[in-house]
Amino acid sequence: MNILDGKKISLDIKSEIKNCVLKNTKKGLRPPHLAAILVGNDGASLTYINSKIKSCDEVGYKSSLYHYNIKISEQELLEKIDELNSNEKIDGYIVQLPLPKHINQNKVINRISPLKDVDGFHPQNFGSMSQGFDSFIPATPHGIIELIERYEIKTSGKSCLVIGRSNIVGRPISILMSQKSKFGNATVTLAHSNTKNLIEISKSADIIISALGIPEFLKSNMVKKGVVVIDVGITRVKDLTKKKGYKIVGDVDFEGVSKKASYITPVPGGVGPMTIAMLLKNTLRARNF
Amino acid sequence: MNILDGKKISLDIKSEIKNCVLKNTKKGLRPPHLAAILVGNDGASLTYINSKIKSCDEVGYKSSLYHYNIKISEQELLEKIDELNSNEKIDGYIVQLPLPKHINQNKVINRISPLKDVDGFHPQNFGSMSQGFDSFIPATPHGIIELIERYEIKTSGKSCLVIGRSNIVGRPISILMSQKSKFGNATVTLAHSNTKNLIEISKSADIIISALGIPEFLKSNMVKKGVVVIDVGITRVKDLTKKKGYKIVGDVDFEGVSKKASYITPVPGGVGPMTIAMLLKNTLRARNF
Repeated sequence: MNILDGKKISLDIKSEIKNCVLKNTKKGLRPPHLAAILVGNDGASLTYINSKIKSCDEVGYKSSLYHYNIKISEQELLEKIDELNSNEKIDGYIVQLPLPKHINQNKVINRISPLKDVDGFHPQNFGSMSQGFDSFIPATPHGIIELIERYEIKTSGKSCLVIGRSNIVGRPISILMSQKSKFGNATVTLAHSNTKNLIEISKSADIIISALGIPEFLKSNMVKKGVVVIDVGITRVKDLTKKKGYKIVGDVDFEGVSKKASYITPVPGGVGPMTIAMLLKNTLRARNF
Repeated sequence: MNILDGKKISLDIKSEIKNCVLKNTKKGLRPPHLAAILVGNDGASLTYINSKIKSCDEVGYKSSLYHYNIKISEQELLEKIDELNSNEKIDGYIVQLPLPKHINQNKVINRISPLKDVDGFHPQNFGSMSQGFDSFIPATPHGIIELIERYEIKTSGKSCLVIGRSNIVGRPISILMSQKSKFGNATVTLAHSNTKNLIEISKSADIIISALGIPEFLKSNMVKKGVVVIDVGITRVKDLTKKKGYKIVGDVDFEGVSKKASYITPVPGGVGPMTIAMLLKNTLRARNF
């Protein structure tokens, strides 16, 4: 069993990005600049945003946070987006989701310039990705592909089960894994809440990517020996032995499944750290040195 | 065994569209207007375009054909597209593919206004469709969904095998069939040229949609009893007993497979006629009466 060490790989990527930034700023070019819009004070959102800003610092990016009161109107938010779209000193930006209910989330995402959409959520980028063209790819599926690539896992012709069809993970990774590319080209089955006989499918899969959000759902008796397992699940489970009062648990029963897997991502330390690394990579692409 | 009669359904749809147009023109509104750009004199392209124009006449649409010499420059073509985008009397238009090699096809498609993109090939529409939002859906997958809907075939929770991953059929139909919708919600496996053990997968599939282009590829021994089969293949096969010197053959060995299928599309007369009907439906949507 080999660990797909997302923490280590994400540090490698950050270090590569840092070197690239340094090389270019030494030439007198300005560093990449990532902006973030945050509405309200949701705890998880604040944690994510702070972690993204910290990562920008680490690699030498400039970052800006536009933090609004939860009562901001949709119109005000759209005006801010127009401003960011035309601000030539900002290369890319993200709108931290979820937004409060009085704001139409799709309208906001559609307003982001596809050229600055480093989250890859704009339909123009999502469509280009789905059609197999070069575009911004959402950070989590992008991170999964990068992990597979860095560990040189063979995917061509393999059967791949993706569990979960969300627009930020399951759907895009199911598309990417089946595309005619070196680290795709798998025969992908996309399973979801309406899927029957999931065990039958999972037992024959060479690669399983789970983005379901049910703690320790995937058990040892559901996989075959040698399977590659990518666990995207991140659920907080109450744990009073921890200082924070909870622990982070993935979709996979790591102890059992890891005994049969050839490669497996831990949680935490697997896909999670890759996500921010790929956001930084998308921002580097947007800077277009 | 029940025939999924695309010819009949397409006539029903055309008749519904015709009534809708009549109702609105009687009120003094102008009819929908579909334009088409054709470059060169490829035989198949001419046949398709003529058939589309004829269908427009049948339902009371206005149509315009812009037929250019094969030597037209990319710049001239893009200028024509800009003109069509801003022409308020044209609701939707198509650029007949393939284009000659000196013209960048993607650049052309990307220039089409997503609001007039009745072929549904623009990344903005493809992305919206992939994310599950209302948008123009490419005509062939749209026609398949419509057939399934009109025959009230149950798809939720069923296993669906899509063979072929082209951007105009396999990829979009694999996405649509797995979406959380009444006539989707299936567990979809997308197979392609690199897929191994296809027979194993096809034998367990409840629904098979084949868009491969290999005549009579899918044989009786590759399917289970009760399977629903949608045949998107249209290949010209030499046949000297026919006046034209060829016959049209699908991906499915109809004689054998139809004995086991619960529903099956014939070729011709199955998915083919649905394609133009759905182009008309997309144009009606673009007219937005």
